[in-house]
Amino acid sequence: MALVDRVLLGPGPSNPYPEATAALGAPLLGHLDPVFLGVLDETCARLRTVWGTENARTLPLSGTGSIGMEAGFANFVRPGDVVVVAVNGLFGERMCDVAGRYGAEVVRVDHEWGQPVDVRRVVEAHPRPSIVAVVHAETSTGVRSDIAALAEAVHEDALVLADCVTSLAGIPVDVDGWGVDIAYSGTQKCLGVSPGLAPFTVSPKAWERRVERPPTWYLDLNLIGAYVDGGQGGRTYHHTAPVALIASLHAALGRILEEGLDAVHARHQAAGEHLQGGLQEMGLELFAAEGHRLPELTTVRVPDGVDSAKVRRVLLTEHNIEIGAGAGAYASSVWRIGLMGHNARIERADLVLATLARLIKG
Amino acid sequence: MALVDRVLLGPGPSNPYPEATAALGAPLLGHLDPVFLGVLDETCARLRTVWGTENARTLPLSGTGSIGMEAGFANFVRPGDVVVVAVNGLFGERMCDVAGRYGAEVVRVDHEWGQPVDVRRVVEAHPRPSIVAVVHAETSTGVRSDIAALAEAVHEDALVLADCVTSLAGIPVDVDGWGVDIAYSGTQKCLGVSPGLAPFTVSPKAWERRVERPPTWYLDLNLIGAYVDGGQGGRTYHHTAPVALIASLHAALGRILEEGLDAVHARHQAAGEHLQGGLQEMGLELFAAEGHRLPELTTVRVPDGVDSAKVRRVLLTEHNIEIGAGAGAYASSVWRIGLMGHNARIERADLVLATLARLIKG
Repeated sequence: MALVDRVLLGPGPSNPYPEATAALGAPLLGHLDPVFLGVLDETCARLRTVWGTENARTLPLSGTGSIGMEAGFANFVRPGDVVVVAVNGLFGERMCDVAGRYGAEVVRVDHEWGQPVDVRRVVEAHPRPSIVAVVHAETSTGVRSDIAALAEAVHEDALVLADCVTSLAGIPVDVDGWGVDIAYSGTQKCLGVSPGLAPFTVSPKAWERRVERPPTWYLDLNLIGAYVDGGQGGRTYHHTAPVALIASLHAALGRILEEGLDAVHARHQAAGEHLQGGLQEMGLELFAAEGHRLPELTTVRVPDGVDSAKVRRVLLTEHNIEIGAGAGAYASSVWRIGLMGHNARIERADLVLATLARLIKG
Repeated sequence: MALVDRVLLGPGPSNPYPEATAALGAPLLGHLDPVFLGVLDETCARLRTVWGTENARTLPLSGTGSIGMEAGFANFVRPGDVVVVAVNGLFGERMCDVAGRYGAEVVRVDHEWGQPVDVRRVVEAHPRPSIVAVVHAETSTGVRSDIAALAEAVHEDALVLADCVTSLAGIPVDVDGWGVDIAYSGTQKCLGVSPGLAPFTVSPKAWERRVERPPTWYLDLNLIGAYVDGGQGGRTYHHTAPVALIASLHAALGRILEEGLDAVHARHQAAGEHLQGGLQEMGLELFAAEGHRLPELTTVRVPDGVDSAKVRRVLLTEHNIEIGAGAGAYASSVWRIGLMGHNARIERADLVLATLARLIKG
């Protein structure tokens, strides 16, 4: 098969950091090899730094980002628990579905798509929820919500669950500082690794309240923890870890921390602002509410008279540039343009701006 | 980090086929890119050939082999269903745990470890089970069971679920010919790919009896199918597919089918027989029952007076050869030596035989 080389500027996956790609092709190690276990331990330590947490239970789960959401509810929801979900996009919607499957009484707080979460409405939705769940960076709309303010305001007995799939390593995340109890991400966005892992972290407070024997065996954190942290009694085999992907994540995190987390965030911010400014200069209208726009994922309205799908198709097939369609009801009226991880650069923004301008005119 | 280059002769992961490693490092594609969707479709087609099935619902699930077991029970067990499990090793044990979590009334039929499944005992264990579950190639003991005979003998209303994690692409598997309804594998054994995917197949008969809304969202085959097969109404996004691993599986399957499935099986058979003969010539005793030994995974008793863990450690650290400890109660009295996928070669058998002979003498 002929190789195709795309610039991936959709909502993810993004082009991995070169270090991550190189590590994928390195000789494979066994999942119980002491050398690999060292790589795994260091990966978890690096993840703690990126998450801003000292949570012992910080690890990459063996599946794509969505498996983080599933693990978050499967291990902490008992039938009948009240789970308040802030819904301001597709991934908030999905949280309601997943929490419901594990028996939660879901209280959903709907918001207009494109708007951030309204902390007050979420807090007032129920007096004593078990869990309050929110998406930090809504991949479907390009909106950032204020997790710090939400976590501060919710009842102290509630666990705060945050979806950080599109935020981690792109914009600041501070799990301990904000008081988040359960959080997950995906590797294929700002972390700059291929899809297939879900970084996950659990606070001691949440751990105390975990389900002893969740319906899922694969995502049972009691069992996975015995392999990953190896605390008491050494490591116990659970499932064969995806060693190549973990080595790749290890390499990407090394690259990110060498550049410096603040510098990485600043790079995402600068690239996103450059793109958003450029789109507005072209006369296009941004979709996400001003003041709440993610630098790493820009949503922009498709101009009147422009065939959204055709532009995306030409971008992809003639220019090898992938951008995303809008999500849900906005499939043909919004584009989603990601500048994540290795692609969070002014040059990538310039590339898509120039090409898009030509196609829209044409 | 300095790279370490191991010969992986444990129970998996095995060293991938070179084609699979090369594909991992190829430029990443988006999970909705038409080029990638072509690769995915072709991967599913190739999997059908290797499984020996025409099942439309044949796909790689986004997790390691164990996720196949979880999906197999999660999508087909309703609370109270009778599931007969043939237990002759660790993975049969695990099936009981997983099926129980989904509410099955588990009827377990225990066998001595090292022995194949006794078809008659399994069939007589319950008059009308919903599912009869069995492991084709027990990774914990190196034993092959006769799935064809079992499937032939079970009540026609029962679904037959077969764990083929260590058999697929190593020894013949014939899903349609045998009458298997649900089967799964892992990529890191005889398929010769890094761990992270679980090839899965479902018969039309099983599909008719699937659970409409299983407790798990991530493994809900109704949702995954809408992305993978794209039958009616086109493809629907479910979760971001692990594109790099799928491209790698695609390449390994291409290699396997180019060599020819019969030739690949013969290569595994020859390498395994060579190893097993060599071990016996050294005076060692094989663990698995004669006539039921897997060529791709050999179990051998550690000779009296030999420190099992020390030999494995020296093999690994001084010779870069990984072999496995025994499973469960046999952790220090049995070794497991895999010759899987790219490692299913006489030279690999000779390498481990020569090195092991020197260490045992020393």
